[in-house]
Amino acid sequence: MPNAIKPWVFTASCPSKLGTVDVVTRYMAEAGNYVDEIHSFDDRVSKRFFIRIEFQPTEADFSAEKFDAAFGPRASEFEMEWELTEPEHRPRVAILVSKYDHCLNDLLYRHRTGQLNIEIPVIISNHPDLEHLAEWHGIPYYHLPITPDTKPEQEAEIVKLLEQYDIELVVLARYMQVLSPWMCEQLNGKAINIHHSLLPGFKGARPYHQAWEKGVKMVGATAHYVNNDLDEGPIITQGIQTVDHAFYPEDLISKGQDVERVTLFNAIRYHIEKRVFLNEGRTVVFSS
Amino acid sequence: MPNAIKPWVFTASCPSKLGTVDVVTRYMAEAGNYVDEIHSFDDRVSKRFFIRIEFQPTEADFSAEKFDAAFGPRASEFEMEWELTEPEHRPRVAILVSKYDHCLNDLLYRHRTGQLNIEIPVIISNHPDLEHLAEWHGIPYYHLPITPDTKPEQEAEIVKLLEQYDIELVVLARYMQVLSPWMCEQLNGKAINIHHSLLPGFKGARPYHQAWEKGVKMVGATAHYVNNDLDEGPIITQGIQTVDHAFYPEDLISKGQDVERVTLFNAIRYHIEKRVFLNEGRTVVFSS
Amino acid sequence: MPNAIKPWVFTASCPSKLGTVDVVTRYMAEAGNYVDEIHSFDDRVSKRFFIRIEFQPTEADFSAEKFDAAFGPRASEFEMEWELTEPEHRPRVAILVSKYDHCLNDLLYRHRTGQLNIEIPVIISNHPDLEHLAEWHGIPYYHLPITPDTKPEQEAEIVKLLEQYDIELVVLARYMQVLSPWMCEQLNGKAINIHHSLLPGFKGARPYHQAWEKGVKMVGATAHYVNNDLDEGPIITQGIQTVDHAFYPEDLISKGQDVERVTLFNAIRYHIEKRVFLNEGRTVVFSS
Amino acid sequence: MPNAIKPWVFTASCPSKLGTVDVVTRYMAEAGNYVDEIHSFDDRVSKRFFIRIEFQPTEADFSAEKFDAAFGPRASEFEMEWELTEPEHRPRVAILVSKYDHCLNDLLYRHRTGQLNIEIPVIISNHPDLEHLAEWHGIPYYHLPITPDTKPEQEAEIVKLLEQYDIELVVLARYMQVLSPWMCEQLNGKAINIHHSLLPGFKGARPYHQAWEKGVKMVGATAHYVNNDLDEGPIITQGIQTVDHAFYPEDLISKGQDVERVTLFNAIRYHIEKRVFLNEGRTVVFSS
Repeated sequence: MPNAIKPWVFTASCPSKLGTVDVVTRYMAEAGNYVDEIHSFDDRVSKRFFIRIEFQPTEADFSAEKFDAAFGPRASEFEMEWELTEPEHRPRVAILVSKYDHCLNDLLYRHRTGQLNIEIPVIISNHPDLEHLAEWHGIPYYHLPITPDTKPEQEAEIVKLLEQYDIELVVLARYMQVLSPWMCEQLNGKAINIHHSLLPGFKGARPYHQAWEKGVKMVGATAHYVNNDLDEGPIITQGIQTVDHAFYPEDLISKGQDVERVTLFNAIRYHIEKRVFLNEGRTVVFSS
Repeated sequence: MPNAIKPWVFTASCPSKLGTVDVVTRYMAEAGNYVDEIHSFDDRVSKRFFIRIEFQPTEADFSAEKFDAAFGPRASEFEMEWELTEPEHRPRVAILVSKYDHCLNDLLYRHRTGQLNIEIPVIISNHPDLEHLAEWHGIPYYHLPITPDTKPEQEAEIVKLLEQYDIELVVLARYMQVLSPWMCEQLNGKAINIHHSLLPGFKGARPYHQAWEKGVKMVGATAHYVNNDLDEGPIITQGIQTVDHAFYPEDLISKGQDVERVTLFNAIRYHIEKRVFLNEGRTVVFSS
Repeated sequence: MPNAIKPWVFTASCPSKLGTVDVVTRYMAEAGNYVDEIHSFDDRVSKRFFIRIEFQPTEADFSAEKFDAAFGPRASEFEMEWELTEPEHRPRVAILVSKYDHCLNDLLYRHRTGQLNIEIPVIISNHPDLEHLAEWHGIPYYHLPITPDTKPEQEAEIVKLLEQYDIELVVLARYMQVLSPWMCEQLNGKAINIHHSLLPGFKGARPYHQAWEKGVKMVGATAHYVNNDLDEGPIITQGIQTVDHAFYPEDLISKGQDVERVTLFNAIRYHIEKRVFLNEGRTVVFSS
Repeated sequence: MPNAIKPWVFTASCPSKLGTVDVVTRYMAEAGNYVDEIHSFDDRVSKRFFIRIEFQPTEADFSAEKFDAAFGPRASEFEMEWELTEPEHRPRVAILVSKYDHCLNDLLYRHRTGQLNIEIPVIISNHPDLEHLAEWHGIPYYHLPITPDTKPEQEAEIVKLLEQYDIELVVLARYMQVLSPWMCEQLNGKAINIHHSLLPGFKGARPYHQAWEKGVKMVGATAHYVNNDLDEGPIITQGIQTVDHAFYPEDLISKGQDVERVTLFNAIRYHIEKRVFLNEGRTVVFSS
């Protein structure tokens, strides 16, 4: 069986128009880029086109710059926003946590074993509790306590750290703090949050307690992009678990953690593999 | 392999107290009732006890009357509400529908093949559309049109039919009408509704359109008892289905129907097998 | 929200080669065919390329013949096997059954309500039991009894009927007969069977009894193409259901029927929507 | 909401007979033991009775010895095998691993956070690779290399370690070695193995490669007791994952690990919570 070769990934979106596919695929063929996989979708409501291609260059002189120079002008005619991601690219991801460690532990494990192809240059928390985990993995850990009064300063410090460490993606791995509008603005579109309910059910605090009160028979988790509206950001993926009458709130919390961590992992994986596109408050996800 | 023998079912609930199990199981043993299966649960929050037993009488002179006379006094000491269901019991179920036939068709099929051990003496609808289905199965079909003005009369007619046909359980198989408080009162605790969302998410009208707007990645269905508060009755069971960006509202509707019909069937089965207990706005369900 | 328009579907496969995508998508653009959705996959093991496109013609003089004449020569260079399916195409499907009606009932329901966009011109069975179902739906029903001695004649009669009714796809909806090698040859690649286990576990007869013996905690169903090797044809899709110790074989049979019918329906839908490709004993399925 | 109190657990099995329930529940009531939950099941094929009770003593002088002395004689009449497990009991579990760390990492995480209420006094491996994990958790790690020649000695050493560390349960967390009949005998009924397929499908080596060859659309994992027959021990629980044509064997391996670790965790939890009973080569599992 031939070995897997990690492919380049091309992604693009633009207003719907005849020829959107062809402008991309024709260039691929002309440039000698071998296509492994295509997904495209044209949304008849938002009237936007989305495409994701995995390919392998066959020309010796292939380079991102050359691609850019040759394809760029063609893309402009379609008002296309596009991105080329090289096989070796490992996005720099900051993880924000509070006291719960189930998501952090899971992400660090998958990072360590190569299942999650990212750099984690920094972990930030409003509590000192999880420093030992960061330490064992050799990752700098910043403990930035927060009070209602110090929130603006603390958030500014976080944003400074994100710049300092050149962060592409922020993961709120059960960070448990309501972000200020200013902070949401800073993170808009480049942060993923895990909410411990099947949104839009049970927004806000203590969703498992809310779920218990309602006597639901399923609890879930939702990974979504952070935007200006708390728990309302575009949903990337959701997970679910069946429960019954014998689950008290503490049991829902414990059981739900398995769903939360897998759901968050899937969302991050989709994001870094460039499978997720924003589409007017919703997402297009070419999952695998 | 020995043949299956349909068992008697004993169910009970009462305030939590030492000895609740023993008062039941001791009588079972003394009366020569062979126990196939027990589930019991004592809710530490509501402080109520719930038990369900499948058993087979071994004494030739066993009868419900004898059971009643002998066990009744013992139960009283525990303020126990209890019920004995004989193997041959087939509850008389009325089905209320509107125009959608996916739930009705499924229930009639399962009824016809013996998967659903009920009588269906009557089908009632505010539209004439599904009469042919009722006819093929030889079931009387009442078309009772409804307008805002005639709602009280129409509901009164329905209630009269339920009495006339000696109905134990009413199934709202996508009946699509908001019931009046008076009607809710009439049906309280003896009617099961299927709502086409994972409640409490997407209450009210057009839940699939709401779900599409939010860009959710899962849609579901909820079967619940009817009470005075629309879409707020105690949940019996829920079902779920994964969806993606390529599902427009009409696709969510079509896909969701498979979840709705299975979820409604499960709820009815649990109910008639006496697996469901009310527990302060929630339910205890000894599912199988 | 703009209305859905049923699209044309283009599918193709050919040996892997640079330019396979471009030859298709370039033609689409040149011919004014608006692309709604593309899935393509290039299998690095079998070294074959697969593509499926949903599109809408925008040129007034579009026709399948024109497409054929213009695209045909381009396809030849790539040794491409391709197919164009028009929006109105309703494949003519024959259903073969025995005595179990759960799959047949489900397919007829979905056929009647338009969920399954096919013609069902004929139902064939080795038993008379399900004739009433066929009759209610106004479909000719042929009762062709079979004994070990009459098998060759019976199978020949079936094949004659398939020709007479101009059948494109045969669905074995729990037909329960082992087909002769000759019959398998006749049906090769154009018949879908539902097997009531998660193949390759529990091949052959009475899979639910086998599953019960092994004490498995999940039972499933497998929809696959019929080929020369019993229960070994290429798998299209599979379904699963959790069970426990309280399920006797008859309970597994009853519970399994829900999985069987949904799994068979999904396989047929994938097939008629041209989502399934043969790939060296396995399948590529661009599911939705 | 009242706090959770960890209950005592009583479990028993015996030949089917009238009064099996009563002999247990009557004693519970007489001894002042408050019953939180009962599950019982009487298997009409194996003709054995199984029961599990969670209870809280209310008498100040309650003790296991007193229970034993009082209940023992009553149990004897029913040839009942029974066991009393105290709330504080933390079974001593040895984990055997090879080179894969996904199951080990998961178990150590759940152990550390209290989700898995066990002691892990020792980890044993035929490879040195995972020592760092053991070290970080402060658990002794024995590296016992194995060759076809040294297998008897190596297995004897393992058994010596199990005795030395007073081990109740052995977990084969992807140990990847075929055990000798002697070793199977030693571990019979007190070891849990995780097999990376949905048994009985894909027994033996490289199940994910076998699954890929067959083109299956679902892969799974099976946790089972070790007995004398490789991959044939009684199944405790199974997990499943949907896959498609784009999964090469290495992808199946990677994806399957999430199912393996959750399935193994569930099996261990069921076992230590005394929810699993052997029943003639199958199991009764009162899951929650």
